[in-house]
Amino acid sequence: MGNKKKETADSGRADKKTIGLTVKKSENISEWYTQVVIKSEMADYSPVSGCMVLKPYSYEIWENIQRVLDAEFKATGHKNAYFPLLIPESLLMKEKEHIEGFSPEVAWVTEAGNHKLNERLAIRPTSETIIYDSYSRWVRSWRDLPLLINQWCSVVRWEFKYPRPFLRTREFLWQEGHTVHASKEEAEEEVVKMLHIYKNFVEEYLAVPVFEGRKTESEKFAGAEYTLTIESLMPDGKALQMGTSHHLGQNFSKPFNIQFLDRDEKKRYAWQTSWGVSTRMIGGMILVHGDDKGLVLPPRIAPVQAVIIPILFKGAEGDILKYSNELYDALKEKGVRVLLDDSDYTAGWKFHEWELKGVPLRVEAGPRDIKEGKAVIVRRDTGERISVGKKALAGRVVSLLGEIQSAMLERARKRVNEHMIKVDNLNDFKDAIKRGMMVKAYCSLSSDCEEKIKEETGATPRLIPLSEYGKKRDEPCVICGKKPTTLVYFARAY
Amino acid sequence: MGNKKKETADSGRADKKTIGLTVKKSENISEWYTQVVIKSEMADYSPVSGCMVLKPYSYEIWENIQRVLDAEFKATGHKNAYFPLLIPESLLMKEKEHIEGFSPEVAWVTEAGNHKLNERLAIRPTSETIIYDSYSRWVRSWRDLPLLINQWCSVVRWEFKYPRPFLRTREFLWQEGHTVHASKEEAEEEVVKMLHIYKNFVEEYLAVPVFEGRKTESEKFAGAEYTLTIESLMPDGKALQMGTSHHLGQNFSKPFNIQFLDRDEKKRYAWQTSWGVSTRMIGGMILVHGDDKGLVLPPRIAPVQAVIIPILFKGAEGDILKYSNELYDALKEKGVRVLLDDSDYTAGWKFHEWELKGVPLRVEAGPRDIKEGKAVIVRRDTGERISVGKKALAGRVVSLLGEIQSAMLERARKRVNEHMIKVDNLNDFKDAIKRGMMVKAYCSLSSDCEEKIKEETGATPRLIPLSEYGKKRDEPCVICGKKPTTLVYFARAY
Repeated sequence: MGNKKKETADSGRADKKTIGLTVKKSENISEWYTQVVIKSEMADYSPVSGCMVLKPYSYEIWENIQRVLDAEFKATGHKNAYFPLLIPESLLMKEKEHIEGFSPEVAWVTEAGNHKLNERLAIRPTSETIIYDSYSRWVRSWRDLPLLINQWCSVVRWEFKYPRPFLRTREFLWQEGHTVHASKEEAEEEVVKMLHIYKNFVEEYLAVPVFEGRKTESEKFAGAEYTLTIESLMPDGKALQMGTSHHLGQNFSKPFNIQFLDRDEKKRYAWQTSWGVSTRMIGGMILVHGDDKGLVLPPRIAPVQAVIIPILFKGAEGDILKYSNELYDALKEKGVRVLLDDSDYTAGWKFHEWELKGVPLRVEAGPRDIKEGKAVIVRRDTGERISVGKKALAGRVVSLLGEIQSAMLERARKRVNEHMIKVDNLNDFKDAIKRGMMVKAYCSLSSDCEEKIKEETGATPRLIPLSEYGKKRDEPCVICGKKPTTLVYFARAY
Repeated sequence: MGNKKKETADSGRADKKTIGLTVKKSENISEWYTQVVIKSEMADYSPVSGCMVLKPYSYEIWENIQRVLDAEFKATGHKNAYFPLLIPESLLMKEKEHIEGFSPEVAWVTEAGNHKLNERLAIRPTSETIIYDSYSRWVRSWRDLPLLINQWCSVVRWEFKYPRPFLRTREFLWQEGHTVHASKEEAEEEVVKMLHIYKNFVEEYLAVPVFEGRKTESEKFAGAEYTLTIESLMPDGKALQMGTSHHLGQNFSKPFNIQFLDRDEKKRYAWQTSWGVSTRMIGGMILVHGDDKGLVLPPRIAPVQAVIIPILFKGAEGDILKYSNELYDALKEKGVRVLLDDSDYTAGWKFHEWELKGVPLRVEAGPRDIKEGKAVIVRRDTGERISVGKKALAGRVVSLLGEIQSAMLERARKRVNEHMIKVDNLNDFKDAIKRGMMVKAYCSLSSDCEEKIKEETGATPRLIPLSEYGKKRDEPCVICGKKPTTLVYFARAY
């Protein structure tokens, strides 16, 4: 039985004097977030400022994310590869806007052993330049296209803003897809296809509703022709970018000389895309679903979907453990990620612990349950208690996991929708942002107007909804009053 | 059908003027190795000296390796986590022997953006120090033990020796397990357990026979109490270390202050292990099995296990492709990793290409095969041609894949055994090493004797067989003639 426990046991229990959070999410979400991440054993600080440790409990979530997304990437024809961590400075400098965007936060290797290096080497902040150097040698003919490659790795961006686990760290884990196409149309299809894969994943697995849209010129990826994004609104009223997909046009194929001999025997520059999501998604998921008791994990991504807690009474321990093991086997057989916590802590202690860790379902088995041939299921998301017969348990757990998954997305979606507002003047704009809302407004998108919005409200343009892009609206700009305008979603942002 | 091709299609075909190798393995194995790695599209050079690109074809092998080993690690209670890439210099300095071993090859980050860093940061050459800093906070009580964590990542060792893809690169992919135990015995069990997992994996999946043994003091991991290793003999007569498992004793727990409160309420320093394998294994697999036509991949790890090549004749193309697709579906259904190459290259070109890429089985389907309801299977390892009825094909492919896997290991084992020799004098020692053999000899293991062997023969002590360690033999040392001695395996090494 000890083995069953070990399957997902984490360290550090004995040291926990205070379990549970000492602050409410609604009162101080920033402190709440830090506490929930550390106390649930998702992450820990490290001696490198701004870098964190992903402990097993969050790394398992990342593994679940990888498993699902990697299968999607492969099903759409992509293959994984691995390119060097270090990028020579001269290579990083090849695309002008790209290096301007990234150079303020590049970590540089300048020495190795006792040697000074002849050229500084950047730790990849993103891999366009090192990958496209290879692509320039690999792509020769239309037969080589499309070239569809993805890489799972970590990247380093030495930001000087306040770090927060998952949401902003100097090193983070991500995937970056890099594709090459023979035509602009095909590249643009790829950009949208990957954005949709991200959107579906974030909504269906992380239960976080997102908006799909296009970044404004001011917010696009450094070096991209344009950037598509999925963003969600967090409970603190800030938008979080959960994934981006860039149409690079020929901005990189020209300086990197990625040309192909087309079917008509003419040499042409290729069209490219890149796209990525990172461990930041985990931060968004925590912020959206967590409550005053701790994490609330969506079942499809939770490392443990159901925890069985035997309610041990003197003299009946053997029977109760045997019964709990039978429940365990029944759930395991149905493919549920289940854990039986038969450690020697009190049942009450275990309730708190697994609530803190956000396990979607708790199954309690005590002497009365055995007598009645039942068990009690407790939902983490609602607290609802459900008594169910032993035989029906496994089926009920499976259906409840599905219900919780849907309910979490719907609740999050409702919350976001309640925090969206259309405004047509700066006062309403300011007021809405102050109340933690995402604002829809018509805007000229001149740099003056964007600047004024930022100064007055702290908000930036998050996206132009995909359906609105390119439509010039005959509506006055919320700032300058001029026409035509574009419909834009604004919010403060992480 | 294009899709079936795409499932494992690689880029760069159109550019290949010369397929096939221009040098024989027996004549110049070093040049042969480089050609086979590059031409089979396993790896490519990069603009960073000593760093390579793992192209999709080798990365798929790495994914297969990860899938199998990761399941083994988890089945033995380990969990994955992720620790920072960068290690502050002061932390790396904490264990004296460790830093002495690694400092000559550490890549240092000294600048970020436009800032000079206050302290140099090492790119991890291995993660003992950064991980044990965390462990010192995580481990408090016997209840927290054993702590069993693994990490998949890349490491950087800025070596100045001649680089070779997979075998020696400045950055490489690996896994590193780091465990903490309450007793020395338990740590020592772990060290052996993980070594066995490595041995079984390398033999059963990569079909490379290895010896298990203990490193001599001169060759052990910097900071370890002792190091266990698996090594194999390559066809060029050099030994290759394929994996190591270190008993760290309390060498790190003391400087890092990893203490736990034991059941008797006394504080004790913990016992630790670390163990790792890397992409270097892929290099060993290539060296052992490849031939003058290119790679020969063991079926259990091959990205493509069988390739179907339609032999197209004018007028019958439709029928042949239809027939080939039926064969494809039959193999797919049996779980074979199969590819149908319906590209418009000639059949002869495709034969060469997939031989170069080492695909274990080729299935040919031409007009006569259709008429007779048959197909021809060709084994990559032996060249044997087998005609088989359509209905029996899938079953036969599956059994052949198993036969090839065993045959490859047996052939490799036979070769290694033929290149092992027991010697009792320096002349025979020199002669054997010259003939590319691994030498067994009794040795005092004094630094003088080790030094003399290295000077005279170029060989170093590779390992003391596990069964021999600790046995003092009443045999004279091959160099100084003194007794007692230890039985040691010597060879030149990668």
